Amino acid sequence: MTRKSRPPQERNHLRLRRVAIDTYRENVAYLHRECSLYRAEGFQALSKIEIEAGGKRINAVLNVVDDDSIVGIEELGLAEQAFDQLGVKPGRRASVRHAEPPRSMDAVRRKIGGERLGRRDFLEICTDVVENRYSKMEMAAFLVAAGQSGLDRDEILWLTQAMVETGDRLDWSEELVADKHCIGGIPGNRTSMVVVPIVAAHGLLIPKTSSRAITSPAGTADTMEVLAHVELPPARLDRIVHRARGCIAWGGTARLAPADDILISVERPLGIDSQGQMIASILAKKMAAGSTHLLIDIPVGPSAKVRSMRQALALRKLFEYVGDHLDLHLEVIITDGRQPVGRGIGPVLEARDVMQVLENDPRAPQDLRQKSLRLAGRIIEFDPDVRGGQGYNIARDILDSGRALKRLDDIIELQGRQERHHHPGRLQKEVVAPRAGHVVAIDNLHMAHLARLAGAPLDKGAGVDLFRKLGDRVEKGEPLYRVHAEFPADFRFACDLCSRETGYRIGSEDEIPQTFVE
Amino acid sequence: MTRKSRPPQERNHLRLRRVAIDTYRENVAYLHRECSLYRAEGFQALSKIEIEAGGKRINAVLNVVDDDSIVGIEELGLAEQAFDQLGVKPGRRASVRHAEPPRSMDAVRRKIGGERLGRRDFLEICTDVVENRYSKMEMAAFLVAAGQSGLDRDEILWLTQAMVETGDRLDWSEELVADKHCIGGIPGNRTSMVVVPIVAAHGLLIPKTSSRAITSPAGTADTMEVLAHVELPPARLDRIVHRARGCIAWGGTARLAPADDILISVERPLGIDSQGQMIASILAKKMAAGSTHLLIDIPVGPSAKVRSMRQALALRKLFEYVGDHLDLHLEVIITDGRQPVGRGIGPVLEARDVMQVLENDPRAPQDLRQKSLRLAGRIIEFDPDVRGGQGYNIARDILDSGRALKRLDDIIELQGRQERHHHPGRLQKEVVAPRAGHVVAIDNLHMAHLARLAGAPLDKGAGVDLFRKLGDRVEKGEPLYRVHAEFPADFRFACDLCSRETGYRIGSEDEIPQTFVE
Repeated sequence: MTRKSRPPQERNHLRLRRVAIDTYRENVAYLHRECSLYRAEGFQALSKIEIEAGGKRINAVLNVVDDDSIVGIEELGLAEQAFDQLGVKPGRRASVRHAEPPRSMDAVRRKIGGERLGRRDFLEICTDVVENRYSKMEMAAFLVAAGQSGLDRDEILWLTQAMVETGDRLDWSEELVADKHCIGGIPGNRTSMVVVPIVAAHGLLIPKTSSRAITSPAGTADTMEVLAHVELPPARLDRIVHRARGCIAWGGTARLAPADDILISVERPLGIDSQGQMIASILAKKMAAGSTHLLIDIPVGPSAKVRSMRQALALRKLFEYVGDHLDLHLEVIITDGRQPVGRGIGPVLEARDVMQVLENDPRAPQDLRQKSLRLAGRIIEFDPDVRGGQGYNIARDILDSGRALKRLDDIIELQGRQERHHHPGRLQKEVVAPRAGHVVAIDNLHMAHLARLAGAPLDKGAGVDLFRKLGDRVEKGEPLYRVHAEFPADFRFACDLCSRETGYRIGSEDEIPQTFVE
Repeated sequence: MTRKSRPPQERNHLRLRRVAIDTYRENVAYLHRECSLYRAEGFQALSKIEIEAGGKRINAVLNVVDDDSIVGIEELGLAEQAFDQLGVKPGRRASVRHAEPPRSMDAVRRKIGGERLGRRDFLEICTDVVENRYSKMEMAAFLVAAGQSGLDRDEILWLTQAMVETGDRLDWSEELVADKHCIGGIPGNRTSMVVVPIVAAHGLLIPKTSSRAITSPAGTADTMEVLAHVELPPARLDRIVHRARGCIAWGGTARLAPADDILISVERPLGIDSQGQMIASILAKKMAAGSTHLLIDIPVGPSAKVRSMRQALALRKLFEYVGDHLDLHLEVIITDGRQPVGRGIGPVLEARDVMQVLENDPRAPQDLRQKSLRLAGRIIEFDPDVRGGQGYNIARDILDSGRALKRLDDIIELQGRQERHHHPGRLQKEVVAPRAGHVVAIDNLHMAHLARLAGAPLDKGAGVDLFRKLGDRVEKGEPLYRVHAEFPADFRFACDLCSRETGYRIGSEDEIPQTFVE
């Protein structure tokens, strides 16, 4: 379409209106069925339209409206996301046309056909995704196609690079920027809040930016937020990190690998879990966050993401391949993922566990302490001045001496101490052992789902507090865990779930699964 | 969840409200961000909720609303589709919970993993699709997975059966119920409107129910609607068919293979074209429509759906395999798909071509006449009393004698003659040859897209009228075709497209592609 053929006449335009509906990362436009200018029915169902206003263009999926109070016949409604992306004022004149499908859908169709894609294809796909040119359906098509025929290691590398290139990057102006990341799936695994102050106290730079929980009951950012502010502008983050040698903040204030966030928002509800996508997602976020040295934690267990040692080793090789080609110093540690780490699941309960470890409280969960020390030790060994094998001892000294606690307190002070004191949720239910025996299984997925239904991470005090862990002896009727919630509807959802299924299995001592590792 | 644990207290319910937004086959629910009962944010983005009211349950995707005038904090809004499916009155009390993913998504994930699915899997998938338990994303996942690893011939059979079983079936109470179907992709290919009256005049029962156009500029139902009513309740259709031995009606008044309609609505905008899906779609609709004898038309050409004879033969085998196992007498005819059939593209222009053929008008497009006679002849040979090879002559006699015209007139009378007389669209633009030469290519896809942009099939008079066909000699500046539109915005969309690209290629005589067939 050439500009010349479309003089900007009044009658060719609709008035823009913001429709206060949050369509979650999908651009949606609302056109009245009796629209004075365009017949809504003329646009093919589920295909997209291109909207132009003030020289800017966006694509959106069309919903037809039959109510003047939502959009009038001379108006074009845009849902919040679309309106914000277009970035013009309400009442501005907008024109509408049929959108071309995003060009990179050709590559997606080639992937569906089983082809291997190239570096350029991934860059085009990520660019279109970031500019909201994909519908949820189209993203699902890409994810399924990539998940089904699989991405080979070069494709994973290219996808990672494309995700990094289509976003912003942080630069800490130091040669060694350490970081750690767990592939996820283990509730209560809040090691970062112990590891960061230990490593920072040792002197390495460890600016930990993390996401909020998407499907898990708490992300590191959610738990840290119980104690301190985590939404910090990048400039302020920079000052904090250079003073405290570390931070524990939400990464969302910078546009770090935004394509990843968008793809994840489709991948998770579909329940598809593609290994290539996961590696690209993790490494892109870390590259964008400016890390140079990265420790990846792969927990293995019967209800973990990785269920066998063979799988864990294959995944490690992939991480190493991509990491090496990104010029990232990357190490992988394989850990015990048979059950949740620590006792608490959910922000307040996890923060309690973390503080007990840092305070050397005798009640502190030993598994969280041990795992944090192992990870911190490995990261400390990134320091060229530390002799191989000495990291663990250095980490333990820092923790036992109280220097880690002091450092976390400094970081909290710099990020801004949380004014409000959160407590475990007031609505409580204890779940008891149906019979005597030993705890022989705790289902990670189930416990995460339960804490999530109870309201975590949105309600800081919601979650699950575990009284018994793997191998513990219980009598019939003894409490296994307590559910905490703050909101009645959520409390009902959680109680309904744990009355159907506790997530624990009680059996005989010889059924306790052996750890794969350590 | 047991009923006992949730007493139906007032405070557990929201008031239902119909939100006049047409979300096209996806159930969408609207919850205020500050909802008094459920925190909208507590439901995971893009995951679904289950809504219960008056003992009925539906699943819906959640959109969060920030405007009381769309839904209040004590209300639950449902988009039109969802509201209609739930089928209770506004103001009724509804409760909301987290929806379990549809159980058949397990099968979809197995398909993503490359597994072959079983008969039962397809039945579960179609059942969940028909009951609107799938989101568009989930349907995209199924379609891509099925398209990528492919469906083997038994899987196609099972998918077909599942589509038939999850809908209604017509029963015409006769032993021989003839039908024809083209796999599509060729604009102007309105043979059914010639074939049905010929076959019915011969005496075979041919109750043609067809869909409206989805991505094409006209379906048979759209074109027939220029002359007669096509939306007829099944009981009335039955009377018409038994009087006239045929009908040309819209199949949408009965629930024939509804899973197919829903899957197609996702497949088309994605632009994925899975062969297995297409075969299942066609045969399920025909089985549900009560056909016993079916002629399948596979056009072959450089811009047709099938581009080589080898492909056409492979497709024929698949149709035959599935047809045989459905106990359907099925024959396949491979036809010339190098260019549009007839001259008109769009309902009014196609109806004109059809009437010229039936009226034995010397201006009638000969390709439409010849193709219709071939198809009608093959169907007439389904009649056990017709000697092999005699069908074509019988069909020609019926057409030439005017009996076919008379029969279409009877059918029109019975279905109800259209009161309004439609004309070709008033807004017109002629596209001329850029240089002298022979027409060596006419792009089916482009001409269909052009007619569609011009407003077909919604505006009956919109479309394209072809003056030159393959092999014709043209001088520079001579008109190739004329675009018709009724609505200024559509006219602009179409003019913009044909000024970028005409869809015709002018070359030298030896470049004219030979037909693959006939």
